[in-house]
Parts: sequence; C-alpha cells; structure tokens
Amino acid sequence: MKHLLGIETLTAAQLTELLDLADTFVEISERPIKKVPTLRGKTVINLFHEASTRTRTSFEIAAKRLSADAVNISGSTSSTTKGETLLDTARNLEAMKPDVIVLRHSASGAPHFIAKHVSAAVVNAGDGTHEHPTQALLDCATIRKHKGRIHGLTVSICGDIAHSRVARSNLYALTRLGAKVRLAAPRTMLPVGIEQMVEGGTVEVHDRLEPALEGADVVMMLRIQNERLDGAGPFPNTREYSRTFGLGLGAASRLKPDAIVMHPGPINRGVELAPEVADGPRSVILDQVTYGVAVRMAVLYLVGGGTPDA
Amino acid sequence: MKHLLGIETLTAAQLTELLDLADTFVEISERPIKKVPTLRGKTVINLFHEASTRTRTSFEIAAKRLSADAVNISGSTSSTTKGETLLDTARNLEAMKPDVIVLRHSASGAPHFIAKHVSAAVVNAGDGTHEHPTQALLDCATIRKHKGRIHGLTVSICGDIAHSRVARSNLYALTRLGAKVRLAAPRTMLPVGIEQMVEGGTVEVHDRLEPALEGADVVMMLRIQNERLDGAGPFPNTREYSRTFGLGLGAASRLKPDAIVMHPGPINRGVELAPEVADGPRSVILDQVTYGVAVRMAVLYLVGGGTPDA
Amino acid sequence: MKHLLGIETLTAAQLTELLDLADTFVEISERPIKKVPTLRGKTVINLFHEASTRTRTSFEIAAKRLSADAVNISGSTSSTTKGETLLDTARNLEAMKPDVIVLRHSASGAPHFIAKHVSAAVVNAGDGTHEHPTQALLDCATIRKHKGRIHGLTVSICGDIAHSRVARSNLYALTRLGAKVRLAAPRTMLPVGIEQMVEGGTVEVHDRLEPALEGADVVMMLRIQNERLDGAGPFPNTREYSRTFGLGLGAASRLKPDAIVMHPGPINRGVELAPEVADGPRSVILDQVTYGVAVRMAVLYLVGGGTPDA
Repeated sequence: MKHLLGIETLTAAQLTELLDLADTFVEISERPIKKVPTLRGKTVINLFHEASTRTRTSFEIAAKRLSADAVNISGSTSSTTKGETLLDTARNLEAMKPDVIVLRHSASGAPHFIAKHVSAAVVNAGDGTHEHPTQALLDCATIRKHKGRIHGLTVSICGDIAHSRVARSNLYALTRLGAKVRLAAPRTMLPVGIEQMVEGGTVEVHDRLEPALEGADVVMMLRIQNERLDGAGPFPNTREYSRTFGLGLGAASRLKPDAIVMHPGPINRGVELAPEVADGPRSVILDQVTYGVAVRMAVLYLVGGGTPDA
Repeated sequence: MKHLLGIETLTAAQLTELLDLADTFVEISERPIKKVPTLRGKTVINLFHEASTRTRTSFEIAAKRLSADAVNISGSTSSTTKGETLLDTARNLEAMKPDVIVLRHSASGAPHFIAKHVSAAVVNAGDGTHEHPTQALLDCATIRKHKGRIHGLTVSICGDIAHSRVARSNLYALTRLGAKVRLAAPRTMLPVGIEQMVEGGTVEVHDRLEPALEGADVVMMLRIQNERLDGAGPFPNTREYSRTFGLGLGAASRLKPDAIVMHPGPINRGVELAPEVADGPRSVILDQVTYGVAVRMAVLYLVGGGTPDA
Repeated sequence: MKHLLGIETLTAAQLTELLDLADTFVEISERPIKKVPTLRGKTVINLFHEASTRTRTSFEIAAKRLSADAVNISGSTSSTTKGETLLDTARNLEAMKPDVIVLRHSASGAPHFIAKHVSAAVVNAGDGTHEHPTQALLDCATIRKHKGRIHGLTVSICGDIAHSRVARSNLYALTRLGAKVRLAAPRTMLPVGIEQMVEGGTVEVHDRLEPALEGADVVMMLRIQNERLDGAGPFPNTREYSRTFGLGLGAASRLKPDAIVMHPGPINRGVELAPEVADGPRSVILDQVTYGVAVRMAVLYLVGGGTPDA
C-alpha cells in the first residue's frame, strides 16, 4: 500500500489485512514501554488545514509510538495563509523529504490531488465531505473486537449522512466486509441515490430513526454540526433534532439486546446522543479512540516503509 | 504518588522528598547530553486550556529530558471549542493510553475532577485561582538552594493574593515546611480569613507592603494582572499600584541584607517589580526557572511510573 | 562558530566551510533511516515571533534528524503577549538550559541583542528587514550544486530589495564568494547606496528587470508582499507589478540558456513569478527547500556543540 486515500478503492482482503495489523498494534499501547523502533528515522508530517485535536493527537501519538519524528503543521499558521496553493505547500514539504504526509483538508479530494504530485506516502485524515478512512478502519476494528466479525451484522448509521465523511467511509468499509448497512437521516441530510453508491452491498435508507434501529447489532450516531441546527438549517433548534434523531434510552431499546453504540466524537451530549446512552454499558465510544491509535499505527507502518527490525 | 493535584494535601515529608528529587534532576540539565532514559516509551500530554508558554515549555523540556514522548494540546484548538466537555476530552485522551496528563485550566478544581475519571496520572499545571503546585515546589527548591533550608525563614508574598494560585500553593508549602509567611496585599486583593487557611503554620497578613518586608529572608512579588489596574479595578493605573505595592530599591532595603527576591514571571517591569531589583544581585528569578524544569522532571518521574534503568 | 546571526560578518572561508558541511548533510535526508545521533540530548528551541511554517518546519526537521529535542514556541502564544520583553523571554528560556535558540523576529537586530545576553547559541531565522542567513546559505548551496561554483557567476536578485532580508543576506554571501550581483527593483524598493553596502564585491543596480536578466547565470525572484501592491503602495495592483517586474517566459529568455531560477517561497504565482517559469526546467526552487534542511542541520551541528560520535 503506497497511500491511504480512501476506503472506496480497497478490497475486503486489504481491509482485513489492515484490521488484523491494527489488532497487533493495539497491544503496544498497553505495555509499560509503549514504543517500538519500527519507524525510527522516518519523518511524519501532520498537515491539518482544519482544526482537529483528536485526530491530530491520535496520529501524533501513533507516529511517536513507532519512533517516527512527528512534525505538526496547522492550517492557520501555514503558508496557505500567505496565498500559497496546496500543491506548492505539498511540493515544499516533499522537498524536505518526509516519509509520510498526513493531510486533513476541507476540500474533498485534496489528499488524492497531492498524492499525484509527491513521492511521500499520503494518508487522508479527512477530506471535506468525502472520506475519513482511518475513522472507518477504527470503527470496523472496534466492531470486530466486540462482535467477533463484521459479515452479516446490521449496522445503522444515523444523522447528517450528506455532510459526513465518516458515514461515507464506513458505508464503503462495512458493505465491503459484508455488513448490512442502514442509513437514517432527515431527508435534507440524505443524498439522493446513496444506496447505489456501493456495489454489491446491502444498504437500506430511512428517513426516520426508529425503523433503522430495530434489531440492529451496531448503531453509529453521527455528530450534528451546530450550524445545521440554528433555524437557518433544516431544524429550528437542537431540541427538535434531539427529539427526532437523537439516541436516547427509549430509542436504543429497539436495538438488539447486545448491540453496541458508537460515535466518532466529539459528542454533542443531549443532541444526537443522550448522556445515559453515551456513558451506558453498550457504549464502545472510548474503545473507538483506543483503536484509533492502533489503526493509525498500522497505516503509518504500512505506508511509512518501516521494518520491524529497523 | 499517583497524581500531583495540589500542595494542600502533601505532608512535609512528601514535599521534602520532591525537593530532594528535584535537586538530583537539576544536574541533568547541566550535562553535555541532558537526557536520561527514565520515561522512554511513556506518553506525556500537555493539555493547556490557558495560554502559558513558560509553563508548557518547562513541562515539555522536562518530559523530553526524561525521554518521554510529549504531545501538546492547546485549548484554542482543542475539541472543547466544538462544545465537548472537559470530562469527554479527558476520557478521550485517556483512551489513547497516555501515562501522564498535565493540565492547565481556568476552572479551579479541573485537575481533581479529571483525576477521578482517568487512570493516567494527572499533574496540575495551574487551575483557576486555586493551586499551581509545581510553581510552589520550584520556589521552595530555589529557596533551599540559596538559604540551605526553609524552616524558620520569614517569607513575604506580596501582591494580588486573592487571585493568585501561586500564592495559595506557596502558602501551603512554606508553612508546612516551617517558614513564617507574611502576606501583603491591598485589602481588595486579600481574601478574608486567609490566615486561617493553613493549619499549624504561622501567617501574618498586611495591607501595606513595607511592614511585610521588614527583616524578611525572602520576598515573592506576584504578577499583577493588567485588567486589575485599569480604573475599573481597585487601582486607577499601574503607576499608583507600583508606588504602593511595587518593589523598588527603597522598599527592598527593608529586607534582610542577604534576602532573596523572587517572581513567578512573566514580570511586569516597573509595575510590581522595579528593573533594578529584578536584575539586581538579590534576584533569583532565573534560578526559579531553572528549578522549574528540575521540579517538573521530578514530578513526571514520580507519577509517570518510570524506572531509572528503563 | 558560536552563533549564526548574519552573513555580513562571515568570511569566504567560513561560508565555504558551512556549504561543504551542508553538502555532507544533504545525503542524510535521502537515507531510509534519516537520523544521526549528533545532537542527542541537546535542546533546540524554535522561537518564532513571526509566522513562518516553512522555516520553522525546516529547522524542526533539521533538529530532529540530528536527534536533538526540538521545542516550538510561537509568538502569538508566548509571554510577549503578556507584555514580557524579548530580553526577559530570552533569559527565561536560557534558564531552561537550551543549547540553541533559533529566533525569527520582526525587529531587525533581535537575534544579536539576545545573543549578548544568553549563553545558548543563537541562530537568526530572519530578523525584520535585516538578515536571513540560513536562506542565503541554502541559496548558495543550491547554486553550487547546479553550477559547480559561485565565483564568477552573474546572479540577479529581483523584486522588493528594500524590504528583503533574503536579498540582503544573499548580497553579502554572493559577493563574498566572488559572484557578480545585479539588483533589480522599482526605485521605491531599492535602498539608496546599496551598491556600497558590500566591500570588494561587484554590485550593479537596475531599476528595470530586463537589463538585470541579460546573460545572467542565476536569477532570484523575491516574494512581493501583498500590502505593497494595493494602490497605497507603489503599485496600483498585482497585474502592474507582474507586467513590469514579474518573471515570465519572455523575460526569462534573456537569461543564459543554462541559467537557473530561484525563489525563497512562498511564491505568489502569477505575480513575481509566472507558473510556467516556477514549474519549468530551469527552476531549482524545490532544491532550495531540500538544501534548507541540510544547511540548517549544518548550522545546528556547528553551533549546537554536538559530536559526530555523541
């Protein structure tokens, strides 16, 4: 694997290899000395043109636990504020001979664009409303841990599907690995024809939350952006959204008894997710974060050209 | 020691152990190769919800000289700007398996709150107007270096006592170690009943600077916040504050001849401290900064679970 | 060499030593494991009081590839926003026992000022309109790579000479190494008497671009600051600047056939440099960036007190 730009182009075998690898890396973070020399002498640049403490921190910790040198660049202080193009920024970073560029960008397709022009490996850490592949991988790794498999499970993804790169990447990953995916969103937050987006997978679309939850093994609640809840958007206020598309204990009772509840974070408590559910026994939200580091270690290992005995 | 949340709960024996340990660490920063492998493979997260270059840099350097991986997160870019609660932020960081979370926060009690909910060690790097324990430790270490002891000394702390976590932590530490403490502040900057705050210690309260300085061994001048000097606060301007509560050469002549002058920095030159005093022969302000790194190395070593031969 | 404050005081022999050293370091960044233990246990503080992702990243990568601990401090979050003077900031950093302080500052002379007051080595990463020595060194290293020498070459520096520390440092370096330098700028951007600034060198001054390009071996196009192109400055708009002082294919045809085109970055594409030239076969702009890391490794190595077998 040269880059990780998205889930769309990965096969089930490639996804499974990544998840297996993440399972071997999750243990490293439990050790007293949580560091391996795999990427010693490699340079990983975290280029974040959108603020994301959580994802940046996860990639930074992953890089450091592999002994790579991690360099952070945030968009607000980068040369793009001086009018430099993304391509020039990427070429300039490239000239400093990094091994991996991790890119978060507000423009869909930005990582694919720079991957064509640099020889460093490029990892997509979220591009516009397009993909967030490491999020989907960490979600799948978390599901496998709790359910033992992905094939045959019913997974519901609920919330603002249209604007969610998390939903898109998970839709690809889950269907490819044989899950049945249900998407639930208000109509204005549901792209037309999304069920045709994946080949060979099973996707159901709902415009209400309840039927999507019925008997599901897994539910992923998406974060709703505040700007879509201010009356100018489709909802007059957060309370109305919470009432119809938030997951409280009542709605959660429709899930299978052993279902798990997921959220990519950060949570809007009381909006898309009730605190009782977020902190309840079915919640695996913090396992997702733990697998985030492990999945990113696996990805950096694969694209960074490290050797276990480096 | 699991956490370092404040000085209030520490015994004289614990304080002395920390200071002794800091004395052994101060030498490492003088070596040509100023690095020991003590915390290799440990992850230290510096979570600073208030800007503080000095303290963050000191903790970062301390962590790196112990070979830990240091990850910085500043409040303005963190998920709290997306409405996440401090508890969710802490739990999420925890799920990334850090060994130590160093927290600076504007809310008094924030470190104690998260320490109850995470298994990582928590170090308070300043919480609201409550405590700043590593500052008090570095102050005590500096006093010991110059005076050989703390017991029996007269230490004057002067300035905006009411809003100062530095004053509060030092009050606990100094009285516990047997110093006589004098507090001098304008009445509006002096909490009622503060002399009863410490058990068994000797605390005098003054509403003028001069009597607090008379014959003292040590004087700590506190930084005065500019917003308290703008006419809306108790002082019409900085000049009036400087005239009554600033330490110039004249006022300093009341101290013992071999007294030392301290300040937690950054200094408002010409406001609470005259440049001739700040840069004079009695000033040990830069020694405080040097001990800052050593004390933080000692604290990270104790709570970080490192072993000298790691 | 104790500090690197500017090119003005360096001899040709010193410059050549630095360039030779950079040539040995450029290879390290091409290795699979791009890291040497030279500065292990040394602390390098990057104190940037002006935003500069490119230069800061280059210094940070250079420090890390030498195994130093790199600590970044940016001006907007530093204590200077609390009113601390640069000298107090420097003294405080000094008390934390760094080996090298890399300083970018908007005030000309700032690095020289702090170098007088700290025992750490100081590296000027750009001070006001004064000097940017590592930029000149990386420019010279790039010229040597492509031309085999600097002595006897004709090098044209074009653009806003008056406000450019890049121009100033290159003027010193290039004349000292025996190049003939041509400066081309609009009259308002050309300091009076600049040709007398260097002793013993050959400097020509032009107020039009074309004669400066005629038969030159090297052209350095300077970045034009947007605020000088807004009508309040000497140019009514960027188009007018581009038409008279921008380097397009037409103007570039006046250069020697094997001439090289340089730019310190970030480029204003279509303003001072046409995209066809920036991306054309004569452009060595990305080599400049690569040599940036190598030159900074050489400088940190020399001033940081490292030993190859450290």
